[in-house]
Amino acid sequence: MDKVVASPEQAIADIPDGATIAIAGFSLGHRFATSLLLALRERGTKSLCLVCNSMGGPGEIRGQILAENKQVRKLIAAFSTRPGVETATDAQIASGEMTVELVPQGTLVERCRAGGAGIPAFYTPTSVGTAIADGKEVREFDGKPYVLERAIRVDYALLRAHRADRAGNLQFRGGSQNFNPSFAKAARVAIVEVDEIVDVGEIAPELIDLPGIFVSRIVKSTRPVDLSSLRKSTRRAPDTARLYNGKPGLTRAGIAKRAARLVKEGSYVNLGTGMPTMVSNYLESRDVVLHAENGILGYGEMVSGDDIDLDIYNASGQFVSLRPGASFFDSVTSFEMARGGRIDTVILGAYEVDQHANLANWSTSTAF
Amino acid sequence: MDKVVASPEQAIADIPDGATIAIAGFSLGHRFATSLLLALRERGTKSLCLVCNSMGGPGEIRGQILAENKQVRKLIAAFSTRPGVETATDAQIASGEMTVELVPQGTLVERCRAGGAGIPAFYTPTSVGTAIADGKEVREFDGKPYVLERAIRVDYALLRAHRADRAGNLQFRGGSQNFNPSFAKAARVAIVEVDEIVDVGEIAPELIDLPGIFVSRIVKSTRPVDLSSLRKSTRRAPDTARLYNGKPGLTRAGIAKRAARLVKEGSYVNLGTGMPTMVSNYLESRDVVLHAENGILGYGEMVSGDDIDLDIYNASGQFVSLRPGASFFDSVTSFEMARGGRIDTVILGAYEVDQHANLANWSTSTAF
Repeated sequence: MDKVVASPEQAIADIPDGATIAIAGFSLGHRFATSLLLALRERGTKSLCLVCNSMGGPGEIRGQILAENKQVRKLIAAFSTRPGVETATDAQIASGEMTVELVPQGTLVERCRAGGAGIPAFYTPTSVGTAIADGKEVREFDGKPYVLERAIRVDYALLRAHRADRAGNLQFRGGSQNFNPSFAKAARVAIVEVDEIVDVGEIAPELIDLPGIFVSRIVKSTRPVDLSSLRKSTRRAPDTARLYNGKPGLTRAGIAKRAARLVKEGSYVNLGTGMPTMVSNYLESRDVVLHAENGILGYGEMVSGDDIDLDIYNASGQFVSLRPGASFFDSVTSFEMARGGRIDTVILGAYEVDQHANLANWSTSTAF
Repeated sequence: MDKVVASPEQAIADIPDGATIAIAGFSLGHRFATSLLLALRERGTKSLCLVCNSMGGPGEIRGQILAENKQVRKLIAAFSTRPGVETATDAQIASGEMTVELVPQGTLVERCRAGGAGIPAFYTPTSVGTAIADGKEVREFDGKPYVLERAIRVDYALLRAHRADRAGNLQFRGGSQNFNPSFAKAARVAIVEVDEIVDVGEIAPELIDLPGIFVSRIVKSTRPVDLSSLRKSTRRAPDTARLYNGKPGLTRAGIAKRAARLVKEGSYVNLGTGMPTMVSNYLESRDVVLHAENGILGYGEMVSGDDIDLDIYNASGQFVSLRPGASFFDSVTSFEMARGGRIDTVILGAYEVDQHANLANWSTSTAF
């Protein structure tokens, strides 16, 4: 049972036009199956349906490079766009060349996990009363409405793990499990790009995060992550206060400090994308456990330069420290925590808020 | 966030009459929350609804001791009985004192996991066309029938883990995750009995199998497992051939040897309870990966005496060795493999088989 394939090109050689492909990886582009994606672009396979969290910005080696090469007919994703950035995906959706199905992130992984678990459909509270639920069955259980969601099965999944043994057992690092396990489960053929391939038995049973039974092919990455350039690129932007009626308001850091003070001792807290992530810098010695939906519980303040670990980042992709008692898991478990009611507080970022607390933002409403 | 409670008695002191309690632990009685169960019996809490895989035999400190003490009104379990053994549970079900809902093992953990994940109901292929599906909605997806199953939420879960830190992060050993994670997720209050309690930060993030967010209380076990007596008790029974028409047939070992020869190289195989588990003794150097539904992939032959590890056992509770590349996981993942179609072969045990391959057995039909 040797699942090692000689090259990324060989690993994706049988993917036909029209295939459905799940692309794992979270947020910023530092843990994607970049070798496989480049091979797939090179091969020019057409009319693909991609399943992923988001496509990434221009130049990032993610689903976006396939869109830029006009290889994508359909996208199933939690985010199709990124604010302030115009991508090939945006243009092709606008022109009708690409169709898109938006799925809340937790629902996306749950649908893939269901597909892999032989569950054809399930009910979820997420998206009830929103456009996401349009045309779907809504049904009450114990007096509350839920939406029927169908499982997702894909032909192929492209994963990125830290290590694999030759039998396909995978070890991830830190918060980099994210979509990988659920996408592998949903796939007929899961293809995994890794930093290192070892002999069977070299990864301790306790350290295998995804058993090889879910994995079909292993290939060594030809594009190792450039940690030193990542470390150089993590300098923070200056934090200046906006003017309101001619007077400076709070800086972003000032707002985050205030929000940090509102969090209860002994609570589990999720920080939304954007300014809320800065709250992690101001918790100091308080007994608060931060939840990052990519799969970390117990992270700490943002770090930069030499302090960064490639696989320890929050849900915005910012590198963070770990606090004692931190743990790692995948996105499915992460959203079990959220949907199951274990998170005490979520701090949302919004561009604007009106007096009825209606929020204008681009992401958070689709996240849970 | 210190979740440590001083004693088992204190840990269960608020469980009221009528509570629903999930009791984790698999197969033979060597990894159950025995201190908590004894405390609960001592307290005499009445009219309980228990959720568990099985109740165990007389004298085993599991759900059975609560039934013997007339504390149970309802049982939700994969197995209510054990062949050839008459228990208090059997008697109370027969007399109508106790009601029982039988749930296939994979469905049981999936229902609990759903309860913990905020999923109120899901469809599953398991049990379609059997008495288990009677009265339940059956619906077709893509032309195949599925049964609607409701989530299970419980008031309390009684777990047994190897280690915990004071924040409730849990580490299991070997194949002893089994029902623990899904039962904890389903519970309002998960109470965990452990061998050892350590300070927060002492368990490496990679070794935390269940993050503390799913756990409410930690207590040190007052009943450490007696490994030396377990080691003494694992001698094998003699294997003699039955007579057929006056001639000796194959021994059980002989049947297992033949079955082992039928298994394909490079396959994933599950061995059913009883004689099939003996197949693991005759695979020798063949490239076959054995799946134990309690949460081990890649186990080897049965071991006894000093070779046993408390937490390395097959789905029949027999101690086994590990092969290189073995991995550990919980029952939910285990049944993802099964229901998701990743297991190539299942070897079933049957008491009798007729010429149309109709099997008579007591367990396997409910297992997947």
